[in-house]
Amino acid sequence: MLKGRNLIAPNDFTVEELLEVLELAGDVFRNPQNYLDVCKGKLLASLFYEPSTRTKNSFDSAMLRLGGQVIGFSDPQTTSTTKGESLADSAKVVSQYADVIAVRHPKEGAAYLMSKYADCPVINAGDGGHQHPTQTLTDLLTIQQRLGRLNDLVIGVCGDLLFGRTIHSLVSCMSRFENIRFLFISPEELKMPEYIKDDLTRKGVPFTEMRDLAQAIPQVDVLYMSRVQQERFVDVDEYLRLRDCYILDRAKLEAAKENMIVMHPLPRVNEIAVDVDADPRAAYFDQVKFGMYVRMALIMKLLGLR
Amino acid sequence: MLKGRNLIAPNDFTVEELLEVLELAGDVFRNPQNYLDVCKGKLLASLFYEPSTRTKNSFDSAMLRLGGQVIGFSDPQTTSTTKGESLADSAKVVSQYADVIAVRHPKEGAAYLMSKYADCPVINAGDGGHQHPTQTLTDLLTIQQRLGRLNDLVIGVCGDLLFGRTIHSLVSCMSRFENIRFLFISPEELKMPEYIKDDLTRKGVPFTEMRDLAQAIPQVDVLYMSRVQQERFVDVDEYLRLRDCYILDRAKLEAAKENMIVMHPLPRVNEIAVDVDADPRAAYFDQVKFGMYVRMALIMKLLGLR
Amino acid sequence: MLKGRNLIAPNDFTVEELLEVLELAGDVFRNPQNYLDVCKGKLLASLFYEPSTRTKNSFDSAMLRLGGQVIGFSDPQTTSTTKGESLADSAKVVSQYADVIAVRHPKEGAAYLMSKYADCPVINAGDGGHQHPTQTLTDLLTIQQRLGRLNDLVIGVCGDLLFGRTIHSLVSCMSRFENIRFLFISPEELKMPEYIKDDLTRKGVPFTEMRDLAQAIPQVDVLYMSRVQQERFVDVDEYLRLRDCYILDRAKLEAAKENMIVMHPLPRVNEIAVDVDADPRAAYFDQVKFGMYVRMALIMKLLGLR
Repeated sequence: MLKGRNLIAPNDFTVEELLEVLELAGDVFRNPQNYLDVCKGKLLASLFYEPSTRTKNSFDSAMLRLGGQVIGFSDPQTTSTTKGESLADSAKVVSQYADVIAVRHPKEGAAYLMSKYADCPVINAGDGGHQHPTQTLTDLLTIQQRLGRLNDLVIGVCGDLLFGRTIHSLVSCMSRFENIRFLFISPEELKMPEYIKDDLTRKGVPFTEMRDLAQAIPQVDVLYMSRVQQERFVDVDEYLRLRDCYILDRAKLEAAKENMIVMHPLPRVNEIAVDVDADPRAAYFDQVKFGMYVRMALIMKLLGLR
Repeated sequence: MLKGRNLIAPNDFTVEELLEVLELAGDVFRNPQNYLDVCKGKLLASLFYEPSTRTKNSFDSAMLRLGGQVIGFSDPQTTSTTKGESLADSAKVVSQYADVIAVRHPKEGAAYLMSKYADCPVINAGDGGHQHPTQTLTDLLTIQQRLGRLNDLVIGVCGDLLFGRTIHSLVSCMSRFENIRFLFISPEELKMPEYIKDDLTRKGVPFTEMRDLAQAIPQVDVLYMSRVQQERFVDVDEYLRLRDCYILDRAKLEAAKENMIVMHPLPRVNEIAVDVDADPRAAYFDQVKFGMYVRMALIMKLLGLR
Repeated sequence: MLKGRNLIAPNDFTVEELLEVLELAGDVFRNPQNYLDVCKGKLLASLFYEPSTRTKNSFDSAMLRLGGQVIGFSDPQTTSTTKGESLADSAKVVSQYADVIAVRHPKEGAAYLMSKYADCPVINAGDGGHQHPTQTLTDLLTIQQRLGRLNDLVIGVCGDLLFGRTIHSLVSCMSRFENIRFLFISPEELKMPEYIKDDLTRKGVPFTEMRDLAQAIPQVDVLYMSRVQQERFVDVDEYLRLRDCYILDRAKLEAAKENMIVMHPLPRVNEIAVDVDADPRAAYFDQVKFGMYVRMALIMKLLGLR
């Protein structure tokens, strides 16, 4: 039962609960016209203490497409926090107007704190470098809808595996499904943190670390790309030598399976060449649409409307 | 008849008109589902020339919960005023799109000026240090709903009585009801202005000035708190000596009546200790909810929809 | 057939298509209650990479009055472009949420570029000094509704004819109708560009250039005013000598026809004296309302809903 619950961290929901949300999201995707009035008379407070147009648009679209309405802000400077109000009070106050809160905040733990004081469900829309659980739900729905399953997959994650919040959550969440194998593709400087690898080992989930994207490509069912930023490197020459290894283009993609998919949380800069966009395996723009559908499902579940 | 009227100052409405708005607000509070479509096809322009997330959220929520829609801005920098347009022209223009305007402006008299040029009702959502009539309506609804009456009350107002716009309006408005007695609790530096006391004297409304909150507490039916700011004091030692007198905590509240209420316009900083929040007499979070309901009632009345 | 089309430049539509939009707009103006639910379940993304409250309010009001909803931003600083995303990707992404996009951008060609990548219709809401086609639609609807025709007109355009984007588009578009004659009223420094005059000559559309507004007034059916800015003049004395010639006031208007109209894209500063506002020939506040109605019609046509 998800009614009245919060979603703060990706693993707050059991696998069964995740599947319940994904199943509803799939139905919204196929039959959006059945959901036009589900949230009539309901308000989402979309509180962005840190700008993120994309995430805000996704939450707002989700609520509006359910017939609900949205209040909130995208600019932290206009809020009562500037008058010295505590986050606890802000949560309590906003929940007097709103039926559900989505909050983005630069500080880790902010969404959790607000959930303790709000009189309505709170969804973490990203807190600092910490958690972004609706991105993980988005990724799961994309994999499920595009490949038809969440188990029996070889998942390659490529790029900055050291700081990539999105990727850490995805790995942690996907490791709960059956027969998953990971390929971790990154330069030495940006390898997956030990605590994540230890966790996989403990669970008996196999993974392989490698440096070369081209080598990984033929094996993967899912290739999840992220950006390798120059600022992460101590040695510029090393960056210049390596960066092309982590750029996906049409040439590299030729070696991939016919029915694999390429994912990316967006925005991208140059880590996926635009010539890949037209390839049917490119799933990153689909991810955007699935992100809206999964948020629609999540809102309905937390409000107890489905 | 309130259709087509403006609300610029708290005393623009007669006592009968105030009661009419409060009665409708009470019904919205009890039966919100009856009002889901009242404002369908209507637009509120919510024009915040000065940021105030809380007030804007309250107005926007009110309109959206009536099935209406909202346009406007929360950031003065994006407006046509920056292109040299007069406020009169802005009012005229916006009223071509909108059915009702809520305006917040740093300059006193701005809302009044706009009401002279707009082709639709204008609600003052706060103009400088001057007037904020929907806060007063909020306070009246809170007292009425929580205590069952607006007469036969001892009302203590505590803190900064010199500069407190909200408190001046409340005192002025409550003095129009029967058998009201005020306790003005403040340090010497922040006493109630003479013109307000003269007005009460003229009307024969009794009041007592005192310095000590603890002394006042046992007598009051309503305790309206506000913040004592250090900047108001010439003498820092005086501030340090006094400030604790004006902080309400659970210990002080023990001496209060069982069925009194504690109010605050929020945001608070430290003038009410958080240990008071769980006390059933704490009414300040309820005020937030009542603020939305009273704005719903006001919008319906000005649009002639109820 | 306008379904699925974009509107980037004023002449993207044929005269027949323009008339189709104007006819629908006229019906919305007369019977707005018939259109309350036409866009139910549809989303407009209103993307303002450059602030323009007025244009944004007009688009947003249009969509909301059709029962649709709006997402987007009025503040370019909160967008993903600040994270290095290309405009092409932004267009592609937003069109995953939205059914139609209105975009304002400081760079010429931005709206066109986005229309190439978006999966939904794109409306240019102004790109740099270049094009602003919905302003032109607004002007056409105003003339048609106020004067009953779009042909057989003497149209005076006055003020800054050199840089006035709105005026260039209006002249270009009105020259496609029958029996139009233009009077170009401006100081020497701000005369109509040669390429526009050449175009009229080629089409056989008569025009006369003159310096004095007073001289032009008795002849015109439409007087379209714009502002003469001091910054445009090399010689300040010349500016001071000339500026009053280009200010319309009640005295100058006495010489005008009874049934002519005065137009202005707003905001105005001082180029139309406020004593003109009460004159029944003043049409500039009507333009605001017609701007909303024509955008309602345009959105319905591009979405194929009428």
